[in-house]
Formats: sequence, C-alpha cells, structure tokens
Amino acid sequence: MLKSRVNLGKRSYEIIIGEGILSQLGVTLKRLAIGTDAFIITNKFLKDKYGAKLSRALLKEGFNFHFKIVADSEKSKSIQTASMVISELAKFSKEKKVFIIAFGGGVIGDLSGFVASVYKRGTNYVQIPTTLLAQVDSAIGGKTALDLDLGKNLVGAFYQPRLVFSDVDFLKSLDNKQLASGMSEVIKYAAIKDKKLFSFLEDNSKKIIAKDSKALEKIVASCSKIKAKITSSDERETCGLRTILNFGHTIGHAIEAAGGYCGYNHGQAVSLGMIAAIDLSQRLKLINQKLAVRVENLIKLYGLPSKLKAIPMAKIIKAHYHDKKFSGKENKFVLLSGIGKTRIVRNVSLDLIKESIKKISG
Amino acid sequence: MLKSRVNLGKRSYEIIIGEGILSQLGVTLKRLAIGTDAFIITNKFLKDKYGAKLSRALLKEGFNFHFKIVADSEKSKSIQTASMVISELAKFSKEKKVFIIAFGGGVIGDLSGFVASVYKRGTNYVQIPTTLLAQVDSAIGGKTALDLDLGKNLVGAFYQPRLVFSDVDFLKSLDNKQLASGMSEVIKYAAIKDKKLFSFLEDNSKKIIAKDSKALEKIVASCSKIKAKITSSDERETCGLRTILNFGHTIGHAIEAAGGYCGYNHGQAVSLGMIAAIDLSQRLKLINQKLAVRVENLIKLYGLPSKLKAIPMAKIIKAHYHDKKFSGKENKFVLLSGIGKTRIVRNVSLDLIKESIKKISG
Repeated sequence: MLKSRVNLGKRSYEIIIGEGILSQLGVTLKRLAIGTDAFIITNKFLKDKYGAKLSRALLKEGFNFHFKIVADSEKSKSIQTASMVISELAKFSKEKKVFIIAFGGGVIGDLSGFVASVYKRGTNYVQIPTTLLAQVDSAIGGKTALDLDLGKNLVGAFYQPRLVFSDVDFLKSLDNKQLASGMSEVIKYAAIKDKKLFSFLEDNSKKIIAKDSKALEKIVASCSKIKAKITSSDERETCGLRTILNFGHTIGHAIEAAGGYCGYNHGQAVSLGMIAAIDLSQRLKLINQKLAVRVENLIKLYGLPSKLKAIPMAKIIKAHYHDKKFSGKENKFVLLSGIGKTRIVRNVSLDLIKESIKKISG
Repeated sequence: MLKSRVNLGKRSYEIIIGEGILSQLGVTLKRLAIGTDAFIITNKFLKDKYGAKLSRALLKEGFNFHFKIVADSEKSKSIQTASMVISELAKFSKEKKVFIIAFGGGVIGDLSGFVASVYKRGTNYVQIPTTLLAQVDSAIGGKTALDLDLGKNLVGAFYQPRLVFSDVDFLKSLDNKQLASGMSEVIKYAAIKDKKLFSFLEDNSKKIIAKDSKALEKIVASCSKIKAKITSSDERETCGLRTILNFGHTIGHAIEAAGGYCGYNHGQAVSLGMIAAIDLSQRLKLINQKLAVRVENLIKLYGLPSKLKAIPMAKIIKAHYHDKKFSGKENKFVLLSGIGKTRIVRNVSLDLIKESIKKISG
C-alpha cells in the first residue's frame, strides 16, 4: 500500500494506492469519520462486478449504504442526471449522516464530485477510481464537471474529495483500449515531470500491458504523487503550475472536438496532441530529434496512435481557433525542453501549428 | 453612500449602500475589472421598472449586457430553472468576458449565485438586491441555494459575490407586507447585535414605514455591517459565530414548514419565532419580562404578527422535530440575554418549547 497526500490545509486528503485494498475500505473510512451512510454512485457493470465486495467492506465496519446506478456514458455528465441523482440522495439522506462514494471512471467521478459539491452546500465524498485514467488523473484534484450541449465541462466546481482510494485490482478488468487511454496520461506525467518514470515505462511495457500488479501500482503511485503535488500548490489553476498538466491537451482537445467526441477518445487524442507538441518543441529548438523520437516511440509502444486518420487539418485548426478565442487570450502551449522538463510558450504562429499538425496527419 | 466590507482574503468584497446610486453602477463595476459583458438575471416586474435605468448605467461605461427573465416565484429556485439559465448563459458568453448580475430579491440572488458558482467552475457575480430582506441579509455572505421537492435550500454552495450594491431607492416600490418582512430581519439584527439600532427602530418607526431614504439607508448600512462582520469570521458556518443569525429561525422555520410555505411568509414566521425565543429566554431567566415586552412591542410596531393563527401546535412541533432529527444533532436555540446579546442554549426540553409555542398561539 502506497500513499500520497494533497496538502490544502483543512481540506487536505490522502491518496491510497494498492493491490486488493478494497477489503480495507471500511476501516479507512471509519478513521476519517465522514459519516455513517454511503450513497454510492456507480454504473451497472461495476456494481455487478464489484458490488458484493464493496458491500462487504462497508458492512464489516457497520456502514449503511445505497447504490445509485447511472448510465455508463458521457451523457451521465448532464444537469439532468445530476438532478435525478440529487433527488434520490435527498430521499436517502433523511435522518442519516451521508457521504458520497464515486465508484467508477472519469464520468462517475466528475458527476459525483459535482453532486457532492452542491448537496447541502457541500457533502463529504470519496473517490474510488476504477480506470487507469481516473486513478492517475481525474479522481485527484477536485475538478468536478458536467457537460452542456454547448460544450464539455462548462458546469462544475473545485471541490476536493476526502479520500482517493485506488485499488489497482480494478484495472485488471480494463480492455486494451481503456488501458492505453490511461497510459497516454501516464506518459504525459513522465514526459513533463518524471524522468525515472519515463525510463520505467520504456523498460517495462510488457509487464504493464500484461497488467502486472506491482508495475501498475508503481505507475499509479508515481502519477498520483505528481498530481497531488501540483494540486497542492495550484488548486484552482490560478498560478500557472497546473498548466503543465495540459501538455498534449491543447491540440488534443481540438482533435476530440473536431471528431465530435466520437472519433478519437481522450487518451488517443492526447497522444496525438503530445506528438504535435513534441514536434513544436523540436521546431522551436527546445529539444533535439533524438528526444522527440524517444517520446514518439514510447507512445507507439503502448498502442497509442501517432498518426491522425479521417479528421482533416482544417477542422482541427478551426476547433483550436475556437478554443483560443473562447478563453479570450492568446494561445499557450506546454512544450518539452527535456524529459521531465516543460516550457510554456505563448503566441505560437498558426503556420508553426499547421506544420505540427501535418506531422501527425496520416 | 455608505460602505461595509466582507473580509475574506482574496475573496473580499464591498457592500455599497446609498440612495439613487444605480447611476454609478458602471463606474463601480469598471473599477472591479470583473468582465465586460453582464448577464443580468431578474424578473419581469423589475426589468420593466428599472431595466432602462440599469441599462443606461452599464452602457455609459461601455458594458455589453443581456437580460434573462425568470418567474417571480420561489419556484425559480429549482434545478430546472438553473439549468435553463445556464444554457442561455453559455450561449451569451461565447467569446465574451462575462459576469453575472443578480438583480432582484432573495430568490433571484440565491439562483444567480448558484449559477455563478457552477458556471465554468466559478464566474464573477454581483448582487444588486432590490428588497429589504435581500439588502440586509440574503445578498451578503455567499450562501447560494436551490430547492428540491424534498426541502428548501438543499442544493447550493458557499460562493461569494464580488460586490453587493444596495440602492435604497428600490425599496420604495415595496408594499407594506414586503417591507415588514424585511423589517423582521432588521429587528433580529438589532436584537442580537446592535442596541443602538434597536433604539433607532423604536424611535423612528414612522419614518421607516414611510420609507424615508435616510432612515432606510441607516438600517441597511447597520445590518450590512453586522452580516459582513459575521461572514468575515465564519464564512461557512463552521465556527458557530454565524449561528446567532438563526435567532427566531428555529421555530420560524418550523412555522413556515408547518404552513407548507404558503401560510406565513419568512419575515412573519421569523417574527413569531423571535417572540417564542424571547419567551424561552425569559423562562430560562436570561432576560426579564420588561425586556421581553420591549422586543414584542417592536415587532408589533412594524405590523408583524405576534400571534399564530391557523397552524396547530402539533404540526409545528412535528416540523421542528423533523428538523432536529434532520441535522442529526441535539436541538440548539439562539436566545437573548439582553438587547444586542445572545446565548446559545442546547437540549431545550420539549415541554419548554411547547410552552413557548403556546405563548404565540392565538
């Protein structure tokens, strides 16, 4: 069992990472004294697969609980679903000391965090992420989110959980595509902040792809530590530190948006975005070709795409341009100046951006 | 023009109070640098009456704006209305630097604050309260709220505005019942914290009821100062200081709930709650009869009820009992130990509570 800590004064919390730790959840929650009645938000697949085990862990320590099933779809990140969940929560919570458990991937984590942030002006909640992407990224840091028709994540709050509880056993039920999607964020952390992790990913791809528990524990712990540290110093993305987490995301988001969110998934789009950002870094002479190739090879090693298919450049540029205008500021790219080292570059010319998108165009 | 300040570090803000200050709104907003495009949430009555003047004040300083009309009803404090407002806000805010103006009474303030708290994980907003109740109470302190079918204010956040701008001219369009409802909270502030204000209210009822500008400015400023001070030291009602604001509200809420929120309005219910709390204070020998009569007389002076009609005691006890169980703690009453002095008393016996409710039963 490994631990990291997000330091935010009274709102500090632990991230606990381990293999087969679910059975110890009850004890951990009891120590936190966050309530006696758990309102568990999850989907049908996860409840069927892990519901009994989760129930046992809670019952053993005398917790009362209720499962609320939502659809396993990005569509669950809607005001409508949140409203339905809140109504059921209000019914359940009468005369109880309720806390919320987000049991699932990014969608469930974002939705549950939002519900927790607004119910009775803030209710305790715990993240139990079940995907690699959620364990290394979305479950940590307190960003909660709902989508609107007009755009993703437009509704939300910064609201920290009381605990992040990452059992790497959950990752064993992920298919290759889901694992790869998470690996894209893992590679991002290594590239921007952790040279040792980068080498570990280069040397242990077989173990990781075979979902070796120790290897998974190692990468989840390393990434959690980075995310915890960055969140501790820049909770609300106001002092720039959190910006480096956007490495690969500027063009990545444009690729996702251009594909109408049904072309490339988030991890794949971020991989392509990282390759474009690496190309930009090379063109701006921040890194040499050898290093650029090293990053590209690592991305390929984990079955992530390095070439765009089916989305014309014009569409990506348009989505990117829209994004830039949306924020009302000049553009801003997180680039690499070495493995584990970043540089923020502003006002990159459209010509250079186009060249880098050409690089990833198949 | 009078000013108070809520001190919360980076989230500090001013409360500006005055007569006919609306024309200076643009200049004040410009100084705050909170955006260029105002999304104004209000109701039809207020837009028809003050929309042109508000528009002029904004146009004069180059602000762009958009009015969003919601129904003038507690029903607007719903997730449904919030969702509709957010969608329109998302459309309006594209490529703009948006901030929100809550232009109205408590319902509009609570709804707008909620929308501001969740749109893009927090958007700047300004409170321009138009009722006495909102100017002295709900617009200050950052409590935002929506209702559920199961209960009032169950959804919300603590999210502070960037400015509270109270023009007492708005109060001139209030009818007697609306003014009295606000006066109930004014009397509460005086009773718990401000002996001088209490005497002022005793000596100047004619002026106040006639809506004399100077008198209104004085009471709004005095109450704002108290609320600002309490909010500054206990933003999230965690260290007990904010509790004293609940004077008259424990039984008051039970009266509102027992009447299905269509019997007594908030101000009337709080008045009855204050008389019951005064009676309890006297029974517990915290104050003498002379002082109790003084508070009761002040309440009557402003046309507020001192006797309950049509709601049987059993119903109130039940609502109160439910409320107590709801919080999962023992009961807790804010009582008076003098004019401007409070005492928190826990575990008051049901018999004593019944005696005090008998006191207000007509």
